Amino acid sequence: MKYSEKILNTPSSFIRNILKVTNAPDVISFAGGLPNPISFPIEDLQKSIQHAIEENGAKLFQYSTTEGYLPLRQYIADKYNRDYGLNFNADDILITTGSQQALQLISQVLINKGEGIVMEEPGYLGAIQAFTLAEPSFYAVQLEEEGLNVEQLESTLKNNEHIRFIYLVPNFHNPTGITYSKETREAIFEVVKKYDVVLIEDDPYGELRWNGEKLPYIGAGRLENSVLLGSFSKIVTPGMRIGYIITKNKELMDHVNTAKQATDLHTNIFSQMVIYDYLKNNDLQSHIKKIVHLYKTQAETMLNAMAKYFPTNVNYTKPEGGMFIWVTLPEGVSSLDLFYQAMEEKVAFVPGDPFYTNKHNVNTFRLNYTNTSPETIEEGIKRLGKILYSLSSEKQTV
Amino acid sequence: MKYSEKILNTPSSFIRNILKVTNAPDVISFAGGLPNPISFPIEDLQKSIQHAIEENGAKLFQYSTTEGYLPLRQYIADKYNRDYGLNFNADDILITTGSQQALQLISQVLINKGEGIVMEEPGYLGAIQAFTLAEPSFYAVQLEEEGLNVEQLESTLKNNEHIRFIYLVPNFHNPTGITYSKETREAIFEVVKKYDVVLIEDDPYGELRWNGEKLPYIGAGRLENSVLLGSFSKIVTPGMRIGYIITKNKELMDHVNTAKQATDLHTNIFSQMVIYDYLKNNDLQSHIKKIVHLYKTQAETMLNAMAKYFPTNVNYTKPEGGMFIWVTLPEGVSSLDLFYQAMEEKVAFVPGDPFYTNKHNVNTFRLNYTNTSPETIEEGIKRLGKILYSLSSEKQTV
Repeated sequence: MKYSEKILNTPSSFIRNILKVTNAPDVISFAGGLPNPISFPIEDLQKSIQHAIEENGAKLFQYSTTEGYLPLRQYIADKYNRDYGLNFNADDILITTGSQQALQLISQVLINKGEGIVMEEPGYLGAIQAFTLAEPSFYAVQLEEEGLNVEQLESTLKNNEHIRFIYLVPNFHNPTGITYSKETREAIFEVVKKYDVVLIEDDPYGELRWNGEKLPYIGAGRLENSVLLGSFSKIVTPGMRIGYIITKNKELMDHVNTAKQATDLHTNIFSQMVIYDYLKNNDLQSHIKKIVHLYKTQAETMLNAMAKYFPTNVNYTKPEGGMFIWVTLPEGVSSLDLFYQAMEEKVAFVPGDPFYTNKHNVNTFRLNYTNTSPETIEEGIKRLGKILYSLSSEKQTV
Repeated sequence: MKYSEKILNTPSSFIRNILKVTNAPDVISFAGGLPNPISFPIEDLQKSIQHAIEENGAKLFQYSTTEGYLPLRQYIADKYNRDYGLNFNADDILITTGSQQALQLISQVLINKGEGIVMEEPGYLGAIQAFTLAEPSFYAVQLEEEGLNVEQLESTLKNNEHIRFIYLVPNFHNPTGITYSKETREAIFEVVKKYDVVLIEDDPYGELRWNGEKLPYIGAGRLENSVLLGSFSKIVTPGMRIGYIITKNKELMDHVNTAKQATDLHTNIFSQMVIYDYLKNNDLQSHIKKIVHLYKTQAETMLNAMAKYFPTNVNYTKPEGGMFIWVTLPEGVSSLDLFYQAMEEKVAFVPGDPFYTNKHNVNTFRLNYTNTSPETIEEGIKRLGKILYSLSSEKQTV
């Protein structure tokens, strides 16, 4: 029996196998990307379930429209208009089955086999998976402390006419935790506006900020071919799989709608109506504050422990929000080798490999802190530090 | 800006435009495919929501596994083993975001651009849409009263080595309402087993039978490359988008899992846990009996009205279950023309065109009876009959 080339090229078993071993109950896992259950407002959602059923009855259980529940789309438009001074309408928004689906839909709509996608290096592994199904050529552009390397972006766009879109995670990037600076955003805008490409800004973590100022989007609201992706997974619940695509490009939205219809008809309407009721009747901002406060404590605990237990030849990012820290080992040290050593000490993380479209055995890895208690974070980092010192010529001082 | 060839080839606007005009409140619509709200056990689902939250807490709201909720997968395996004498395990089952998604995943996994899919003619329009995204060559095989034309199937398979799968809806077929006879099923099995192709049996309506005997599947349980699709949309709720793929082919299932992960990570776990709780704690069979009783009455009302009001040169199927009747007009009469005339009389149906991969302006159309009261069915068919007589040389006698 034969399978499609695209599925044979889609990475998965590596990550799946890693997550399998990291799920053992006695393992301290920094490998996942799970929100803390404190971010699920369970009691308020229960009230919203009752309320939405009372108000809408059978409509929660019937087939529904492909673009999604109108009041929810209007709520999302209003939110961005208020928070970012943008000018979205409900018609600019389509509800997706989590923002993972948005990645799949967009790439199906824009990419013929072999056409180009600009990816951050390193980039979000879920996006690499989703896009691979469209059989693109990936163009990796270096992600640096301030964001994408703009010069490299420009030369990549200039030299490759078949590039259809650029995919960026400008806030608290997955896997690195990096946030693009205002200057880099502006510079990217100036470059991208000269080319006939779509700019996708994926922003699932933007509201999880505990440090610094909220920054404007790069293309949303001012580039004709701008797509903004968002999600309720990190601020309400991921289990209900509610994400969304925003674009003011009507033709693009029309094609996304067709792809959505072909893919799963429409997003779970029960969950859309419940989440809308929750958003309408609760103070989302004070709920988000609770999440941010917790993640800040956890991130600081991890960073302090890393300062204390890691050798100085190990570098890492210091996120201002979000869920991840990115670690860079000395040149030539394989994070995959480290992973196997760490698993013997019952600590897990995600080795950097799956975040690259064309590199293996890299010296980087991702740490997640959102779903582990401060005590466990301290203990896990201590164990990791011990291994790192054993690989290093430095002497451990703690 | 450029779009992918696959999205430009995916049919959608035709159907979307038709459904827009048919949704006006004063239109009698036989155009949709909506279950009757009686099929939603709302009160019992509300109990299951409370119960599932009490029992599982935050797990309903967290990220979950790609393959789906294990107890639900086990329930589904047990159900087919009991009802059909099959031998499925939970591992043979993956939960999808409605069975529409199953169509999309399977075609992504199996089809390289240009490779072949055997479709029933006419066939399910949602499948045509989903498959088109994989850019296949479609091979239409005639659907007849007893099921697929087996001779044509065999010659099609023999002459086209690049055919990867065959897609069939053997019970109460959409759009025709036809059920494959036992002999046709056996004959198809004998042909298919000689070829290296996957046989997909899509069975969302199988339990909605009011006449005749339940028949065995064609390939499920005996063909190595068998895939069976099912759904809770027609017997519990479509709004929660819970369908499933069953196959005992481990390699195929592994690839489907990868495609599912790339597409939307996993199916809404809240809805999976709620539906599982509902299935565990309620008598599904007696619930289905209520639905079947209602649909039988509605189907009989429609068929009796057609006998009374339609000219004798109009032919139509007489389903033993399911949701649809298929009408064939005299040769040369366009159902699309009829559609526009009918809309003037405020009656709607779906013209046959979108159910064909390579035919336009056909003389067939689909009627749905499940979401309309008997009185309204009678009135709608009466109006349609009047138009049909006006097109015919026959004299109306009622």
